[in-house]
Amino acid sequence: MSSKARVLLVGSGGIGTVTALNLEQGGLAEVTVVCRSNYKAATEKGFTIDSCEHGKFSGWRPSEILNKIPDVSADKSIMPFDYIIVTTKNIPDVPPTVVDLIKPAVTEGHSVIVLIQNGLNIEKPLHKAFPTNVVLSGVSLMGANEISHGHIVEEDPDRLFISPFLGSAIDDEKEIAAAKEFVRIYQASGKVQCSYEADVLFIRWRKLMYNAVWNPICALTDMDTTRLRLASEDGPDSPVNLLVKPAMNEVRAAAKAAANVELPESLVQDMIDADPMEIWCCPSMLQDKRKKRYIEYQNIVGEALRDGEKAGVAMPTVRTIFGLCKAVQWRTMDHHGLVHPEKMLKEQTKA
Amino acid sequence: MSSKARVLLVGSGGIGTVTALNLEQGGLAEVTVVCRSNYKAATEKGFTIDSCEHGKFSGWRPSEILNKIPDVSADKSIMPFDYIIVTTKNIPDVPPTVVDLIKPAVTEGHSVIVLIQNGLNIEKPLHKAFPTNVVLSGVSLMGANEISHGHIVEEDPDRLFISPFLGSAIDDEKEIAAAKEFVRIYQASGKVQCSYEADVLFIRWRKLMYNAVWNPICALTDMDTTRLRLASEDGPDSPVNLLVKPAMNEVRAAAKAAANVELPESLVQDMIDADPMEIWCCPSMLQDKRKKRYIEYQNIVGEALRDGEKAGVAMPTVRTIFGLCKAVQWRTMDHHGLVHPEKMLKEQTKA
Repeated sequence: MSSKARVLLVGSGGIGTVTALNLEQGGLAEVTVVCRSNYKAATEKGFTIDSCEHGKFSGWRPSEILNKIPDVSADKSIMPFDYIIVTTKNIPDVPPTVVDLIKPAVTEGHSVIVLIQNGLNIEKPLHKAFPTNVVLSGVSLMGANEISHGHIVEEDPDRLFISPFLGSAIDDEKEIAAAKEFVRIYQASGKVQCSYEADVLFIRWRKLMYNAVWNPICALTDMDTTRLRLASEDGPDSPVNLLVKPAMNEVRAAAKAAANVELPESLVQDMIDADPMEIWCCPSMLQDKRKKRYIEYQNIVGEALRDGEKAGVAMPTVRTIFGLCKAVQWRTMDHHGLVHPEKMLKEQTKA
Repeated sequence: MSSKARVLLVGSGGIGTVTALNLEQGGLAEVTVVCRSNYKAATEKGFTIDSCEHGKFSGWRPSEILNKIPDVSADKSIMPFDYIIVTTKNIPDVPPTVVDLIKPAVTEGHSVIVLIQNGLNIEKPLHKAFPTNVVLSGVSLMGANEISHGHIVEEDPDRLFISPFLGSAIDDEKEIAAAKEFVRIYQASGKVQCSYEADVLFIRWRKLMYNAVWNPICALTDMDTTRLRLASEDGPDSPVNLLVKPAMNEVRAAAKAAANVELPESLVQDMIDADPMEIWCCPSMLQDKRKKRYIEYQNIVGEALRDGEKAGVAMPTVRTIFGLCKAVQWRTMDHHGLVHPEKMLKEQTKA
C-alpha cells in the first residue's frame, strides 16, 4: 500500500492536467485523472505537455486514467480517495452540478474536496451534500489550455491559493489543517507557487474584480481585453469608462458590504491593466462563448450580484451584464436543445 | 415640365423602395432613386415588389434610377429636387454622415429634406449644414426587407408620421406647412396611413422606448424578441425584468426630464408585447449585427442617454447597454479595417 495521497482529479483540461502533473512530480501523491473527450488520446498516447515550469513531456501518464467518475461505494475494490480535486467549469444552471458529478467518488468523512474553480458560494451545495467532508478553496492563476485532445500548453505559471472555506459543520481547525496539508503536497515539486491563504473571501472577491467584469464584457462584445482597452483610448465615453470601471467599483462595494472585504481603489486600475497588451487575452468566458459552450456566469457574476444586492449595494452595471449573460446562456441552451422555444410557444398559444 | 414634385430618394432598401413606389402610385411625385449594391439589378430588371398594400410588381421602375447622388450645383442640367428623402441607416460614427452624403443634391433654400430614420437629434447636423432648408421628421412603422438585390417584400403596412423638427433658423409656420404638404403628396396613393404629427418629440421618444431597448438587447444577445420573452418565463430574475423593463423606464424618465414628453407607464408592457410572438421578430440592429454591419446605436441609444443624463436622469441600464454597443461597433470597424488594433498597439509600445 502506497503512503502517497490518493488523488482523484476531475476535469482534465489545461489546468487540471498540469495540476495532476505537478502533484505526481512532487512525489507525495498518485493521481487518478478522469478524462472525457480526451480519454482516447490520453490512454493511447499519454499527454503531451509543454509546461512553463515543469518542461516538455511527451506520452506523460498519471497513475491512472479513467473515462468516468469511479463509484467507490458500489465497487469496494476501489480504495477511497484522500482528495478529490475539481477543475471542471462550475455551471450550476446546466446539469450535472458538481455535487452530482463527484458524488460516486466521495467517501464520507474522509475525502477532502478541493474546488479549483472561480466564483462565490461554490462550496455551499457541497457543504450541504457532504457535511462530513472538508471542502477546500483553490484559486488558480495558472494559464493553460488544451490545444488538441491530450495536448496541453501551460503559458502562465502555476500559482495556487489554497484556503479553508469554513462555515461548514466541520471544526475550523480541522479544515485549516487539511488546507495546510494539501499545500504541503502540492508544493513538493518545488516548481510552483502554492500558498495557504487564511482569508478565502478576500482571495475570491479580489479575483472577481477581474472575472466578474472582464469575462462577461469580453464575452458579450466578442473582444479580447487588449481590443477593449484600445477601443477606450478615444476619451471618457469609452467601454473601459462606461463598463469596466463602474462594474469593478460595484464589485468592490459588494465585497465590502457583503463580506467586509476591503479591495483598495487602486486595484481597479491594476485589474484594468492586468493582462499584458501583447497577449490579446481572451478570458475563458469569451473562449466559451466563441465555442458555443455554456458560460460560468452564475457563480462569477450572479453570486457577486446577489451577495452585493442582499447587502444593500446598488449594482446596476453588473446587474445589466448579468441579465445579458442570462439571455446568452439561454441562447446556448437553445442551440444545444436544452430549451425548446418552438414548443414553448405552441404550449403558450394553446393555454 | 412636370407639375409633379421632384423627389430624390436616398437609400433604396426595403423601406426606401416601398416609399418610392407609394409616391409614384399617388401620382403627385416623380421619384429619382439612388441605388448602391442593387443598382445593376434595378436597372436591368426593375424592382420586384411584394407589398401588403400596393400588391405585387415585377419590373417596377421609378422615374429615374441613379447609382450615385446627383451633383445639382456642378451639373446645371439637373433640375433641383423639391424633396430629398433619406431612408438610409443613420450611423454618424461611420463616414459618410447624412450631411456629406446628400450635400451634392441639396438646393439651398429649396429642397425639403425628409429624414425617415430613427433616433434623436438627427436633424441637428442638417440644420447646421443646410440652414435655409426645411428638414422634416419621418417615423415609419413599415416592415419591409430587401431579400435579394432589387427584390422587396413589405409585410408590415406603411404607417408614416411626418412632423416638422422645428428649432431651425426657418419660420415654424413654413416648416409646418412643408410637413403638411408632404403628407398630402404621400397620402395621394390612398393606400397608406400617413399623418401629420405636431409633436415630433413625443413620436420619437415613444418609438425609442422600443428601439433603444429591444434593438440593442437583441443585438447583444443574438436573440429575437420572442426568444427573449420565452427566456423570461421562469421568474423575476429574467432578461425582461433585469433588462427590458428597467431600460424602458429609464427612457421614459429621460423623455420626461429632457423633453417634457409623458410616456405612460402602461406603455412599458405594450412595448414588451409589441411584436406578435409567432413572428420571432429580429429588430434591425440584430439583423445588422448578424450581417457584421454597423449598428445605429448612437442616435437610438446614445442620444437618449445623453439627453437623459444631461437632464439629470440616472440611466445605468441604458448606459451599460450603450457601452457594450460602442464596443461592438468598434469590433465591426476592426472587422472592416476601419480601425487597426495591431498598428495602434505598436505605436503605443513605441511611445
